[in-house]
Amino acid sequence: MPKAETIRSAANPLLKDVRRAIARGGLTHEGLAVAETFHLLAEVLRSRWEVRRVLVAESAAARLDLPAGVPVAVVADALLQRVSATETSQGVIALVEPRAWSIGELFCGKALVVVLDGLRDPGNAGAIVRAAEAFGATGVMFLKGTVSPFNPKTLRAAAGSLFRVPFVHGIEAAAALAALEQNGLDLFAAVPAGPSLAETGWAAPCALIVGSEARGVSAALRAAAREVSIPTAGVESLNAAVAAAILLYEARRQRTPKS
Amino acid sequence: MPKAETIRSAANPLLKDVRRAIARGGLTHEGLAVAETFHLLAEVLRSRWEVRRVLVAESAAARLDLPAGVPVAVVADALLQRVSATETSQGVIALVEPRAWSIGELFCGKALVVVLDGLRDPGNAGAIVRAAEAFGATGVMFLKGTVSPFNPKTLRAAAGSLFRVPFVHGIEAAAALAALEQNGLDLFAAVPAGPSLAETGWAAPCALIVGSEARGVSAALRAAAREVSIPTAGVESLNAAVAAAILLYEARRQRTPKS
Repeated sequence: MPKAETIRSAANPLLKDVRRAIARGGLTHEGLAVAETFHLLAEVLRSRWEVRRVLVAESAAARLDLPAGVPVAVVADALLQRVSATETSQGVIALVEPRAWSIGELFCGKALVVVLDGLRDPGNAGAIVRAAEAFGATGVMFLKGTVSPFNPKTLRAAAGSLFRVPFVHGIEAAAALAALEQNGLDLFAAVPAGPSLAETGWAAPCALIVGSEARGVSAALRAAAREVSIPTAGVESLNAAVAAAILLYEARRQRTPKS
Repeated sequence: MPKAETIRSAANPLLKDVRRAIARGGLTHEGLAVAETFHLLAEVLRSRWEVRRVLVAESAAARLDLPAGVPVAVVADALLQRVSATETSQGVIALVEPRAWSIGELFCGKALVVVLDGLRDPGNAGAIVRAAEAFGATGVMFLKGTVSPFNPKTLRAAAGSLFRVPFVHGIEAAAALAALEQNGLDLFAAVPAGPSLAETGWAAPCALIVGSEARGVSAALRAAAREVSIPTAGVESLNAAVAAAILLYEARRQRTPKS
């Protein structure tokens, strides 16, 4: 492990900054994303995002395996545990400079764009980005009013996919619609009851709009899109991440040539 | 609203019991499940579970619409907020007597049983039960070592499905295997890489085994089952609830007669 400073005070400005970022569900004051767990650290190191600093608990320091040049701060175990967003901290927090994408980069190849419209749960948002990568989506839009991609819980639930999938965030619905239409995408809004996904053609460039857990897709976007739903029995709706992932799975199935 | 007692002290034994159940992620001392939100209350009222008591915040009491005979305790807003498992409490908590199922009730009709083997996240477990109902599963087994179906967060994520889908909990893997085999079910273990779900026959009575988020399906169950996986690109795995739901979606697709 590289030579490291040791933090022993809860008043340390860096710790305070990380704690605030976790509480706010966003970036640190310096604009860095907070990535917890050794798995996420490994994922970010093999991505094009840049690790700026690593905080590690004293008891976990021996596990740390970093390239030269990454500054490390060792933190007393109890202190780091109090900073962590999770009940079961592994004792490592990476501070990461996000890579910025242009909106055009979401439309590479045969576009399949996921539009998150007001989703509030970071676990759902992260799981959707993970499924988006798994099923070949070309990009993700976090519309204004949606949980931040930089919420540490979103990053964690995405399990590394946010370091690889092109995404934009904080954009207005109107700007998103303009970009989607300019790129010639078919728009589908996920709704609890409507035409079945199996009857929906996903082979052309298209976008899947996923609404908030409580209210679904907003009226403006619904008006611009065709509705699509998953046939179910007994339930009013599915979990938002589950529904989005099934729709993306179906899109990939239709796009994969039969062997 | 029926005539109600009012609770103004944090030391009230009922409040303390509910707080402990939420902290432990299980039933109250009296064996009652803690169901939060008005939506969940409505779902439980139209189910075969029995509402034994409702706690409601003073400011939410006017919203309460209960059949005669359900005891209500009105609680000072701040007190109930502190008891709640969620950051955004709606100010209502129902205490519910769970309905117990026999293991045989999980195998009614053409069985499709979901086996949760060590899953730890209540949000995932609840979302899986919701998907299980949606896609026609006949029952769910919570094996020993799995998060409790009565964890208030599991109940909430299941969005009412736990009040309807037959389930058993806390059973040993060996007992579960014996019951599954005795009922002649094909066993499938969800794994990150293996034979594709599309090449797997789900039409016969079968069970889907879903492992823990960190370690997957346990060795004993894997040995007894055929492996099945979802074709993905780029990711090591999917979120456990997402993966289970996609497998159940595919099972339903294969079981639904083409129109």
